[in-house]
Amino acid sequence: MPPATKSKAASKSSAKGSKASLTYASAGVDIDKKDAFTESLDAQLRSTYNGRVLPNPGGFAGLFRLDFNQKLFRRNYKDPVLVACCDGVGTKVLLARELNTFDTVGIDLVAMNVNDLVVQGAEPLFFLDYIAVPEVDTTMLHALVKGIAKACKDCDCALLGGETANMPDIYRKGDFDLAGFCVGVVELKRTLKPTRVQVGDVVLGLKSDGVHSNGYSLVRHVVKHANLDLSKVYPELDAKQTLGQVLLTPTRLYAPPITKLLRGYRVKNVVSGMAHITGSGLEGNLCRALPPTLDAVVDRSSWPVPPVFPFLQKHGNISDVEMHRIFNMGVGYCVIVRPSFADSIKKSLEKLGETVSVIGEIKKGTGIVRVK
Amino acid sequence: MPPATKSKAASKSSAKGSKASLTYASAGVDIDKKDAFTESLDAQLRSTYNGRVLPNPGGFAGLFRLDFNQKLFRRNYKDPVLVACCDGVGTKVLLARELNTFDTVGIDLVAMNVNDLVVQGAEPLFFLDYIAVPEVDTTMLHALVKGIAKACKDCDCALLGGETANMPDIYRKGDFDLAGFCVGVVELKRTLKPTRVQVGDVVLGLKSDGVHSNGYSLVRHVVKHANLDLSKVYPELDAKQTLGQVLLTPTRLYAPPITKLLRGYRVKNVVSGMAHITGSGLEGNLCRALPPTLDAVVDRSSWPVPPVFPFLQKHGNISDVEMHRIFNMGVGYCVIVRPSFADSIKKSLEKLGETVSVIGEIKKGTGIVRVK
Repeated sequence: MPPATKSKAASKSSAKGSKASLTYASAGVDIDKKDAFTESLDAQLRSTYNGRVLPNPGGFAGLFRLDFNQKLFRRNYKDPVLVACCDGVGTKVLLARELNTFDTVGIDLVAMNVNDLVVQGAEPLFFLDYIAVPEVDTTMLHALVKGIAKACKDCDCALLGGETANMPDIYRKGDFDLAGFCVGVVELKRTLKPTRVQVGDVVLGLKSDGVHSNGYSLVRHVVKHANLDLSKVYPELDAKQTLGQVLLTPTRLYAPPITKLLRGYRVKNVVSGMAHITGSGLEGNLCRALPPTLDAVVDRSSWPVPPVFPFLQKHGNISDVEMHRIFNMGVGYCVIVRPSFADSIKKSLEKLGETVSVIGEIKKGTGIVRVK
Repeated sequence: MPPATKSKAASKSSAKGSKASLTYASAGVDIDKKDAFTESLDAQLRSTYNGRVLPNPGGFAGLFRLDFNQKLFRRNYKDPVLVACCDGVGTKVLLARELNTFDTVGIDLVAMNVNDLVVQGAEPLFFLDYIAVPEVDTTMLHALVKGIAKACKDCDCALLGGETANMPDIYRKGDFDLAGFCVGVVELKRTLKPTRVQVGDVVLGLKSDGVHSNGYSLVRHVVKHANLDLSKVYPELDAKQTLGQVLLTPTRLYAPPITKLLRGYRVKNVVSGMAHITGSGLEGNLCRALPPTLDAVVDRSSWPVPPVFPFLQKHGNISDVEMHRIFNMGVGYCVIVRPSFADSIKKSLEKLGETVSVIGEIKKGTGIVRVK
């Protein structure tokens, strides 16, 4: 994607030669089509730009001006720390392919990255994507980038560039892969560290929008094993949506409410830790926010489990232990807060559109999550 | 890789249940092995760190302190611009797999990114990698990361994190894919823009180390089509190395000499433009450094073409046009400089280990590369 998207392949030449002459096109790489595609993306990228993105026509790298916004960098950042992360969507892409729906995994890609980023207390600045495909399917790529750009806009994050790699020898027809990369900034003093967490702090759980983007190798395994129909509406799952639609529901973007929440409590350290609940579930992720002397004691009955989880558990005959180790089970993001602010923060997050449950409390321990 | 590497998969449980109970392990994802692998990478990542990388144990994002080094940020950067790019290695990974050699493509991955980054006048700060594999082959992954870490160290660039995605349903046994993301910084005023290029400027060409990382779909097509033997030494190609070794030679890292060069000429604007010669060759890349009113007139006889190119051309019966549109043909990086400094810059680059040829001159024109 312009300006920072480049091709892993060279221009298709109209070389005239003997019949046996090899060309890049004969090796399966159609570059004209790809160049046309990348140019056509320009408007989508630009829709995510703010004044801090510098024009760089023809360049292979994106430029992001750090202190364009004086308010941001002169007043708010005395000791800025860049925060960077990288993540993909996993085999959810295969489900997207099966259902021929690609915008939602574009949203997943951004969500998996920005949600990890804000856990550090950072605000997202820009995003880059890597899309690997066997052939240039412009309809599919446009849908993908549409989702990526929409999610970036929602997070006030510039889609600074990326790479679309056209590799017919690695990816089978219809297959593809996605990786994303996000950079944000946080003031050194406001970096969230496990040492900030204290006994008595309250754990708030933010509702997930379903399976999000982890565990799809197992999800697909269950669908196949139990002979489930992705195009069918299962009433116990959802009254209107097909199983495929339910499973493709994009990962919730927690970055917008979390960024706003942290801006509202800039001076007071009322938020002591956060966790994005991804692969390895609540227990495997919330423990990352804890110091070695404290536990989070979580009450599993304190939030409603969305129907997709019992549905998968039943059809895959999956143990409780396995379910909780792989899936978010209804809580996609946790915020650990000082007890006296728990109510007001819960209300702030609800005003910002989140569904929040008090799911636990911090007690003396050994840095683990205890479930009751 | 710690601290910023995370798994796309959840912990393998030892769930006890009925025989038909599905687990993540039964879906082909072996997480214990992967967790052990990511922990074992710690030393390699740490070897690339400098004082600006902040510890973030257990976190999913890497933290890079911008102004730790006061000299860097208080004196040299008044208006810092972040530069970011993303690139992969293309189907060179398939050749690596065939030859069971993985450290060199790790170097390629870093080179493709840092070389793009320094074209903007930026110095690299940190790098993240995305490695997608069908299964956790620790020997292969260690070799890959060894190459990535070595190249990062050579470029004074922290390997801040990454993602290793374990996706048996997308990648066939032995297949894999690689993507890299690099972030650097440049002072706004020192950003290299086409408007800096003037009539009379001299184009210096820096020798490439062979095919680098573009055009491998065609390279592999030629090898197959002409029935070439990757394990054979072809004397016209190289007296000692096999064809496979020659083709796996990593992309040259231009970032170290270019960064040093730019530091040496900080005040004077003697470097007016640069180009990393990747897919679409010298003509397709050098033109990106030109304003719409100037041409680069390049003499193709002014540098020696490494034997790998005539070798591929002969065996693939590839036209001259196609060769120059796809391959770097011996020049991997271009530096456009003021004529009165051409000699001293050429000498500086040679002292830094580069082989440099004067390959052309800037003349009035329409923003293209003219070949004579």
